[in-house]
Parts: sequence; structure tokens; C-alpha cells
Amino acid sequence: MIIVVSPDASPEDLDRIVHRVEETGHQAHISVGTERSIIGVIGPDAPELQDMFETMPHVESVHRVTKPYKLVSREFRAGRSVVDVGLGVSVGGVDLAIMAGPCSIENEDHILDTARAVKARGANILRGGAYKPRTSPYAFRGLGEEGLEYLAAAGRELQMPVITELMSVRDIDAVARYADIIQIGARNMQNFILLDEVGKVRKPVMLKRGLSGLIEEWLLAAEYIMAQGNPNVILCERGIRTFETAYRNTFDINAIPLVKELSHLPIVADPSHGTGKLGLVAPVALGAVAAGADGLMIEVHNNPDHALSDGAQSLTYDRFAGMMRSVAGVAAAVERTVPGVGASAAAR
Amino acid sequence: MIIVVSPDASPEDLDRIVHRVEETGHQAHISVGTERSIIGVIGPDAPELQDMFETMPHVESVHRVTKPYKLVSREFRAGRSVVDVGLGVSVGGVDLAIMAGPCSIENEDHILDTARAVKARGANILRGGAYKPRTSPYAFRGLGEEGLEYLAAAGRELQMPVITELMSVRDIDAVARYADIIQIGARNMQNFILLDEVGKVRKPVMLKRGLSGLIEEWLLAAEYIMAQGNPNVILCERGIRTFETAYRNTFDINAIPLVKELSHLPIVADPSHGTGKLGLVAPVALGAVAAGADGLMIEVHNNPDHALSDGAQSLTYDRFAGMMRSVAGVAAAVERTVPGVGASAAAR
Amino acid sequence: MIIVVSPDASPEDLDRIVHRVEETGHQAHISVGTERSIIGVIGPDAPELQDMFETMPHVESVHRVTKPYKLVSREFRAGRSVVDVGLGVSVGGVDLAIMAGPCSIENEDHILDTARAVKARGANILRGGAYKPRTSPYAFRGLGEEGLEYLAAAGRELQMPVITELMSVRDIDAVARYADIIQIGARNMQNFILLDEVGKVRKPVMLKRGLSGLIEEWLLAAEYIMAQGNPNVILCERGIRTFETAYRNTFDINAIPLVKELSHLPIVADPSHGTGKLGLVAPVALGAVAAGADGLMIEVHNNPDHALSDGAQSLTYDRFAGMMRSVAGVAAAVERTVPGVGASAAAR
Amino acid sequence: MIIVVSPDASPEDLDRIVHRVEETGHQAHISVGTERSIIGVIGPDAPELQDMFETMPHVESVHRVTKPYKLVSREFRAGRSVVDVGLGVSVGGVDLAIMAGPCSIENEDHILDTARAVKARGANILRGGAYKPRTSPYAFRGLGEEGLEYLAAAGRELQMPVITELMSVRDIDAVARYADIIQIGARNMQNFILLDEVGKVRKPVMLKRGLSGLIEEWLLAAEYIMAQGNPNVILCERGIRTFETAYRNTFDINAIPLVKELSHLPIVADPSHGTGKLGLVAPVALGAVAAGADGLMIEVHNNPDHALSDGAQSLTYDRFAGMMRSVAGVAAAVERTVPGVGASAAAR
Repeated sequence: MIIVVSPDASPEDLDRIVHRVEETGHQAHISVGTERSIIGVIGPDAPELQDMFETMPHVESVHRVTKPYKLVSREFRAGRSVVDVGLGVSVGGVDLAIMAGPCSIENEDHILDTARAVKARGANILRGGAYKPRTSPYAFRGLGEEGLEYLAAAGRELQMPVITELMSVRDIDAVARYADIIQIGARNMQNFILLDEVGKVRKPVMLKRGLSGLIEEWLLAAEYIMAQGNPNVILCERGIRTFETAYRNTFDINAIPLVKELSHLPIVADPSHGTGKLGLVAPVALGAVAAGADGLMIEVHNNPDHALSDGAQSLTYDRFAGMMRSVAGVAAAVERTVPGVGASAAAR
Repeated sequence: MIIVVSPDASPEDLDRIVHRVEETGHQAHISVGTERSIIGVIGPDAPELQDMFETMPHVESVHRVTKPYKLVSREFRAGRSVVDVGLGVSVGGVDLAIMAGPCSIENEDHILDTARAVKARGANILRGGAYKPRTSPYAFRGLGEEGLEYLAAAGRELQMPVITELMSVRDIDAVARYADIIQIGARNMQNFILLDEVGKVRKPVMLKRGLSGLIEEWLLAAEYIMAQGNPNVILCERGIRTFETAYRNTFDINAIPLVKELSHLPIVADPSHGTGKLGLVAPVALGAVAAGADGLMIEVHNNPDHALSDGAQSLTYDRFAGMMRSVAGVAAAVERTVPGVGASAAAR
Repeated sequence: MIIVVSPDASPEDLDRIVHRVEETGHQAHISVGTERSIIGVIGPDAPELQDMFETMPHVESVHRVTKPYKLVSREFRAGRSVVDVGLGVSVGGVDLAIMAGPCSIENEDHILDTARAVKARGANILRGGAYKPRTSPYAFRGLGEEGLEYLAAAGRELQMPVITELMSVRDIDAVARYADIIQIGARNMQNFILLDEVGKVRKPVMLKRGLSGLIEEWLLAAEYIMAQGNPNVILCERGIRTFETAYRNTFDINAIPLVKELSHLPIVADPSHGTGKLGLVAPVALGAVAAGADGLMIEVHNNPDHALSDGAQSLTYDRFAGMMRSVAGVAAAVERTVPGVGASAAAR
Repeated sequence: MIIVVSPDASPEDLDRIVHRVEETGHQAHISVGTERSIIGVIGPDAPELQDMFETMPHVESVHRVTKPYKLVSREFRAGRSVVDVGLGVSVGGVDLAIMAGPCSIENEDHILDTARAVKARGANILRGGAYKPRTSPYAFRGLGEEGLEYLAAAGRELQMPVITELMSVRDIDAVARYADIIQIGARNMQNFILLDEVGKVRKPVMLKRGLSGLIEEWLLAAEYIMAQGNPNVILCERGIRTFETAYRNTFDINAIPLVKELSHLPIVADPSHGTGKLGLVAPVALGAVAAGADGLMIEVHNNPDHALSDGAQSLTYDRFAGMMRSVAGVAAAVERTVPGVGASAAAR
């Protein structure tokens, strides 16, 4: 950390700041300049310290020099993490992870039918929500454990790992029992108790970025999980909240290469939520793959205008198939593969 | 709800949309215009419906006509709710609620000393955090139940109701036992399970607005609590996340009169988090009171540059006293009172 | 400026950075730490340098230490600037500047009638738009020079200084001839050619903050004007663009005390544009005054639902009168005065 | 337009609103519902009307039904516009437009050398700034007309059309004389006078999106240009301002497919400004092409850490060459071509 001392500080003022630095167990390295003195704080950048120093008289500004996260950083692991999610599928390798399925699990047949359809069109992971975070208390909130059973059964039948959202510590045992990947939703990115708890589970966790989550906060949320001993973390960019209202969220494509620069963790893209608008899902999916995403999460519904949630952004089976053919082509151009889509299709 | 049909729709297309409206149990009222037809959907505006209709072919746009919340609205209760928080203090009446104390409870003496100091300077509710949501897993996360005991003891000693944050359903019994007001923090505004659970408790709940919470989402979060039977909800504006980086959050003063227009619930202001900058706390507190806030929540620490959290925005006892004198003056100008600050002080 | 060198830099890498610093005419002050070395760059923080250094290999981050503006800063002038706008009115002193009038000047009688009405209710500066920035090319764009004549005539008649917006260098002579204060609108905050030109005029300039203008950028825009020799700059906070859609703009109350901390220039508040919603104008106006604003700019129209622009946020004469009585009360509580509103009214 | 009347309106109140609608020259089509009546306003959606109606008593909300722009819309022209920019290059066809060059033109040799380098690596349009919008008045503001001469000479020499920014009506003749494409920068997106004037010129205009420009506002700004008779408008997405601070701007990839859905105009992507960070430029460029962008605008500098502006985001010649090989591959996957990059390179 670097403390910039204001020009009006007397030598005694400077001493007082140095003394406070030393009280915190750090060393102070002083550079006296012509206008301002600068104090280098040697030792770990504890998050509280910046605040403390900023409040001291004659401190003009405090600059952090090191990243506040460790385990998720490239400095901790220089290579790229590949997360094995079971049944021979992994996230972060050359093959793209294609997670597809309905927003909500509606009934047993529905999820099974969808699983068949998406697998046939190139998906390798099945998604479906049993616990649904809903803005209104009066909206459909999912089938709960019954939904988990249907999802797991469909996954078994089609030999696909399944992913579903966990909203509360209360349901962690049930979700961990049925799911191959536990999803933490955008609204829970900073539900720190939940992060601690999924850190204690050994299942892979997919952590979505919050609607207004800074990339640094998102990586710190992943750090919560890793700090409890679970290294199997997948990040998911799903759009942020901005001033634009012509679509639901702004998919942050910059986040994909930036996260790969800062962290070894794999990152997948959710263009369904990242746009919230049917016509934008496929183009943004292609963009995310071109920019380096390790996979996609796509909402697919056989009958979007009858979906119990998120109909406005769900692809039909046909549109999903069309998108997957283009995804395979773009993936090839950036040296990635989509095993479920045949070479002839990829060649278009 | 109003469905605007696109100009290219044939009579059959229109019929198909009308049929879908009727399938959902609503009546369709059709106005055929020169360019576009418009379908009025008669019946409750279920949240799922907008999505569904938007995905249908030949639907150009769907407009909601009614608010998605009920119990929190002025239509449900025309007057203003006043929430009794115990020991003769209430929130939403003529007297302002002044919640003050440290960000974190640090030890028994510290909270007791602070309680005495803030009460003597005009506070009527004691705040203090025992469970702290922290961006980094390596930061101080509060004393937990031990902190709750110290807080409750200080409250008893000074005869002040106490408010503290609940972060997880896991701790609800402990918090409900010790606290007079349960605070739901900004990061949990859409932790729907937690909202359900505090809705089942009879204690007053103060619900902070999320960093990127739309006012409509915030009111729907309050609706979650009321829908479970707890009418004692207090809203708290604490700043939103915007593009500006010169301070920590942007205090949304517009939210105060707007919430009062839309809802009967009381609303208090937290300028400590709403600015995150020492020099801004008092001016924004005055602004909030002038704009109609029913109270203030202020971080006060006897020694801010030694605080275990949020030092950069904590007022010293002296600055708090100075602010309270001005608050009393502004309050009088908008026909509110601050009982803890003497008339001579208010007259400055 | 401080350059943080990455841990992997060799002594030769460090030398190369130091050499580059010296090439730019600055001195380099090196602190070798255990993990990272830090280079203090001694000399003026030229805006280009941060960019340049950030691109160099082995540079981890670059931190600016000094503010990029000079003339507008408190370091340049410790006291507060008071801008004399003519006819005995000034902005930045104890008396609040109350600028009121219609959004657009509609005709000669209309502006004269409005001038009489607002003066009688406490305004001391007359506002009115002759050149209107309109989002759509098909909207009413103002009366142009004819409007300026009507405005100036009304100002003369009522002995009020007048303020109007200048949109283009093309109209600078006309606007400077008729107006007492030249307004630069939010959309032109970074129209740098226009800023240069109003810097060469001797008339007071009111510079509105852009919809997404950082406070630092806004002060630098004011610096453009002052750098050309015009010290008579008034800042105007008029709301920023955020994710919230329940009102038109988010009035940034934090900006008021922060600007007063950073700059000696006066700052007024425009709650009409800062909210865009009738019911919010008066409460936010009171809030701004309580937070320290040096004045208000308010849209007033005798018949808002017939206004040629901005009807949705214009106050009627009666509502303006009611607001002014409350403004006088709040102003008194923060030791400001509103000369045009009688003592009995202020006492309510 | 649709006016929703509040439930408390009497028949007389309804009549009054209908009368006001008719006064504006529109027809009113009334649907009386069980709770609320709805008035369809038949006739053009004049921008002023929404405001007017919203201010009337008993009006609950007003919904616009038609888009406020005409000439730029797909309804006006169903196909896609292809803008011929001279020397056999066009924007919006199968071939991607690759605009590359330095941020600022620094001297005659520099621009010529850069032109040679970027043409050899696949660019077909030369960019370079002679008039630079700079946040600080003390920064380098470009060579002005001298720079235009160098740029035009380099374009002639290499047979490349050239693009450069116009900041002020003052310089329109000079820029129109030397440039093949006139660029309107982000800060001038709503400089309406400037838009009018470039609408009167016959040269192609590239209109960048403002930092906080809504897509609707951006299309209306393009409408300004087309309304003056200039159909040769190219849009350029260059990143928006959001809460994220880990990079300079948030490139809005959603805007690419959405603009193509709403408008017939071509759209190119500027990932240099859209990220402001070297390592992100190439991935985001690939993403933009995959999502359907009609071209790219890229800052290239032979020696970025000596660039007079925007060094931090400028690619070296080598990095540009590497990026272009990948661009050609991704373009092929979405059925676009990059004529300047050989087939062998594209095949990687």
C-alpha cells in the first residue's frame, strides 16, 4: 500500500502516520518529495487498512498495490484450471462446455424431452432450475426437491452432468446430492455465508457475477469458496446492470479476457440472461466464444411462450440448433472444439 | 397489461394472441387501430405474463399498467405506516429516528461508551454490527453472538432500542432474540429466502436498498416480508452504485420522495454508506432530512482511524454532535422534530 | 505520479522504466521493496504520461498523486468564489440564487408573465431557453434569437439577470449580447471548442454536469473555461444517468459537498432535470439547499400540460410559491438567506 | 401513444384528458376497463406529447407505441445500407471494414509509416486524429489542419480512404475536404448543431455512440444527420460508461445485434476505446466480428509507450498482425471476408 501525505503535513504529522503504520504491524518506507511525501507500507494489504489510513489527518490518498485476492489469481497458479464436472465433461479445456436447458424445471417429461433435444444439438451439460429467485413473491418459485429429482433423472438418462441453482444454505444437502455443478446465482454473489458453505462441499461450483458486481468483488467471492478448500470454481458472466434499457442486461464481453488475465479459473458466458432478448442470444453467444469463453449457458424451451419463466429469452430447439452450428464454426477459428456438433455442421 | 400488436399481423395472428391471453385466464379487450391493434389484458398482472406475451410472434411490446406490488403500496394503505420499535421509539412519525453507533461492535466497553455518547448527542436507536458482510474472506467478520450480547446490554443500559444486521437464516433466532430491529443489508436485498424468514418473525425489519436495486425491486423485496405477515418494515436508502468514483456510493435522494409517493412504509437514510466519505456524511444527512426522510443511520466511532471497519466514513463524537445540531434545525424547517437535541441547540 | 513495478522486473527492466521517466523531463525517485519496486515521478502530472507508463513492460500500475486541474481547485484559491451576475445579484454568497422560468421561451407575453410570477414568489434570476437541445430532430427546437429578445426584455422589465443556454459557437455573439449568464448544457459539458470560446467571453458561465460526467471531468471542463481567462464559472448539478428508471435522472446530492471540498466555484442545483418528475422537484430542491447548494434552477410554467417542452417537471406558480416558502425555512437552518421570500413566509 | 387513466378518475376527468388529446390534433380511442380506462392516441407520436400528457391530473402513465425515429429504421428501409467510402471500399457489405492507425497524427512520416504497416496487415481504411477531444485543457490537442494534410497524403499514397474526427462546425470545411469519412466522436453524439451540419455534407459520417448514450438516442442522433439529407451514416459502438473500473469503458456487444434489428445502417466496433486496455482489444475485436459487426476501428502505434495519446490501448504492428489473422478466421465462420488478409493466414 502507498500512502500519499498532503503537502501541508509537518514532520510531526508525518511521524504520526508512520507510527500508525507500524502499530498495524507493517513497515513504513518513507520517500520525502518536494511537494508531497509518500509512505510505502510494507506487508500484507489487509482490506481494513486502506480505510483506516484514509481517515487519518494529512493523508491525501491511499493506493493499494497488490490484488486483494490470492488463491484465484494467476500469481497463485500460472496455468489454467480445468474443472472436471463428471461423466467425462470438464470446463476450461479445449472443448467448450455447453450448458443448456429450461429456465425452470416444469415437470418430469418436460426436462427429459428438453435434455434429449439439447444433447442431440450439441449440449454436454443439462441446466434447469428447481429453486428460482423471483423478483416478486407472487411468481412461480420452482418445484424444489421434486424438480431436483427430475433433473437428476434426466441427466442420468442422457448421461449429462447437471447444473442447478442453490439459493440457501437450507437446501445445500439436497442440491449437492442431485447436482453435478452447484450454481450460485447473480443475486447471491455476495451472500457470504452461502459462499462459505459451498466452499466446504467438494462439488464444482459455478459462481455468477452479480448485477453490479465489480470484477474484483466477483473474484473475491470466488476466493471465499476457494478459501474454504473447494478449488472447483467456474465463473459465469451473465450481464451487468447499466443505464441501457433496450435489453435486460448488458453482457460484459470485456470481462472474459480480463478475468482470464487475472485468474486461472474458467469462465463461461450466459447470453440468455446477458441480453434477456431472444434475437440477441445467438450473436452474443458467438461473440463470447470468439472472445475466449470456456463455455456457454443457454436457456432452451420447446415452447417459449408457454414457459413458466424467462420465456422472452429462451431459444426453441431449432434456434438452438442453428446457433450451435455457428458456435462450432467460431470455436474452430479460435482453436476450441464443440464435440457434440459434427464436422459437417461446423463446416456449415 | 397492454399488448401492442405489430403492424404486419394478420387477423389470424391477432386471434392467436387473443387466444393465448384467454388461455392464461384473462380477458382480452381489442382495439383495432389504423396501424396497430392493441389488446388490453383484463385481470391480475402476473409477473410471468409479460415475458410470455413478449415472446409471441407479432407482439411488438407489452406494457404493464399496474404496479407489481400490493401490500407496500399507497393503494393498499393510503396513510403512512408508523413502526413501533420499542421503548417508546417509533419510525415514521413526526419525531426523526436517529440510529447511531459503530460499524462493528468491537468489545463490551466500546459499544457501551459509544451508546452513551450518541444518546447524549441526540440518537434514539443504537446500531452496531455483530455479523459483518465483507467483500474479502480475509477481513474481520464481526464478533457474532458475543457481539449481540454486548449490543443488547448497551441498549438496556441506555434504554435505547438496538438494530443489527442479519446475514443468514442460520442466525435468525439469535438476532431476533437480541435485536429490536433486524437489519437486512444491501447485499441481501434479494436474498429471497431470508426475506421470507424475517417475514415470519414479528420484529421490525429494516430493509436496505441493494447497490443496484431498482426502487420497484426494493418495494417487491419489502412485499416479500409483508406477504409473510410482518407489516413492520422500514426502508433504508444507502446509496447506489453508479459510474462516479469520487466517493463510494451515490446517495439517491430522489428515492426518498418517490418511495413516499409509492408506499406507506417509512424510509430512513444512511449517508455513511451513501457517501463513504467523511466530509459528505453531514451535508447529505441534512439533505435527506430536508427531502423527507423519517430518520438517519449514522456510523459513529470514538477513534475512526482505529475502527475495525468503515473508518473512512465514521464520525467522531464531536462531528456527530455538530451534525445533530444542524439536523434539528433542518428538521424544524420541514415540521419534524429531534427530541434528543435541545431547543437551544437547534437554534444554534 | 507513482509507478508500481511488477515483481518479475529485472534491474535492467527497472532501468528502462526510469530512463523513460527521465526522457519525459521528470525525475525518478526509486524505492526498492521486498516484492515490488516503486518509482516516484517528480514533476507535473501531465495527462498523457499515465497512459504512456501504463503500456510499458513490467509496469503493474500507475497512480496519479495530484489533481489534474489547477485553477478551479481549492489549492489555487482557498476561499469561495462569488460570481457577480449583475443587477445586484451574485451566486456563491449568503443569499441563494433562485433561477426560475419556463424550459422554452414560447412568446413575448408568456416569458414576461412568467418573469413577473416567479419574481413575486422569490426568484432573483430569470431562466428561459431560446436554443433547445432536443433528442429528436423533429421536436420543437426553440425560438432562437427572437426568444433571446423576449427573454432580455422580460429581464429588463423585471430587473432580473437572465440565463439562457448556448449550444454552438455560431450563436455565441447573440447569446452573449442578450444573456447575463451563459448556460452550457449537460450534453455540451465536453464540447471543448465551445468551452474554449465561452472562456474568451467575460460573461458569467453556468456549466451543467454531463449525464455521465465524472466530477473530475466536470471540474476539468470548468478548467477549460478558466484557462481561457474567464473566472466567472458557476457549476450546476442536474442529475446523472444511472440504472434507475423510476425517474428521469438521479440527482447527485453527494456532488454538492464534494465539489465544495475540491473547488472554490459556486454550485447550484437543478432538481427539475435532476428528477424529471413533478412530485420530486420540491423535496430534492430542499435537500440540495440543506446540503449546501448556492442556488436552485427551477422550471416553472403557468400551464405545464401545455408547455412546449419539459412539462412533466415544470411547477405551476402555486407549487413554486409553496416550494419557495419551504426553501426559505431550510435555508435559514443552514445560515443562508432567500431575500425574495418574506420573513413571515419563511417562518411558516 | 397509450394513456392509462388512474382508477380514481371521474367521467369528467376522462373527458378532460380526451379533450386535451384532441386539442393536439390527435384522435382519442377510449377503452373503459373495470379498474382503469385506457386512451389510445391515434396519430404521430410527437416527442413533446408524452411529457404533456404525463403531467395531466389522473394520468397514471403514458406509453409510446411507435419508435421516435423513422429514416434510420428497418421500417423505412428493410434491407441493409452499404456505405461507399471511396477507392472501392464500402461499409456494410460482406467485406469487413478495417479502420486502423494512430490515435493522433504525430507527423508526416509517422502517419505514412503507420499507413503502410496497417495496410500490409489487412486494414483497408486509415484512421488518425488531427483534432483531439481531450479531458484536460493542458493535454495535446492535435496538429489541426496540418495533421489533415499528412493524413490525406498518406491515404493517397497507400490508396486508402481516410477517416478523422470533426469536433466543431468551425472545422467542417477543412475536414470535409481532406477526409473520406467524417467521424463524430462520442462526446459530440448529441451536439445537435454539428449533427445538422454534417447532415448537409455529402461525405459519409461515422457516428460514435456517446458514453451514456441510449441506443434510442444514438439512432435519433443518426436521424438528425439523415433528416438533413445525408444517408451515408455508419454507426460505431465504442463502449459505454458503467460502474466497472477494471477497464476504461464497457464494450456493449449487445448493441451490435440490437442495432441491426432496429436499423438498416452499418455498425462497426471500436474495441480500442471500448476496453481501453491493451490485452482486451483483440479478444473483444473477435467477439464483435462474431456478433455481426460490419467492421473494426483499431488504434495502432509503432511505439505505444511514446504515443502522444491513448498509448495504453494501442496495438503494435505485430499485435495488430496477429489480431488480423484471427479476425479473418472468425469472419469466415460468420460468412464475412477480410480481403487484406491472405487465405493462408486466415486458415492459420
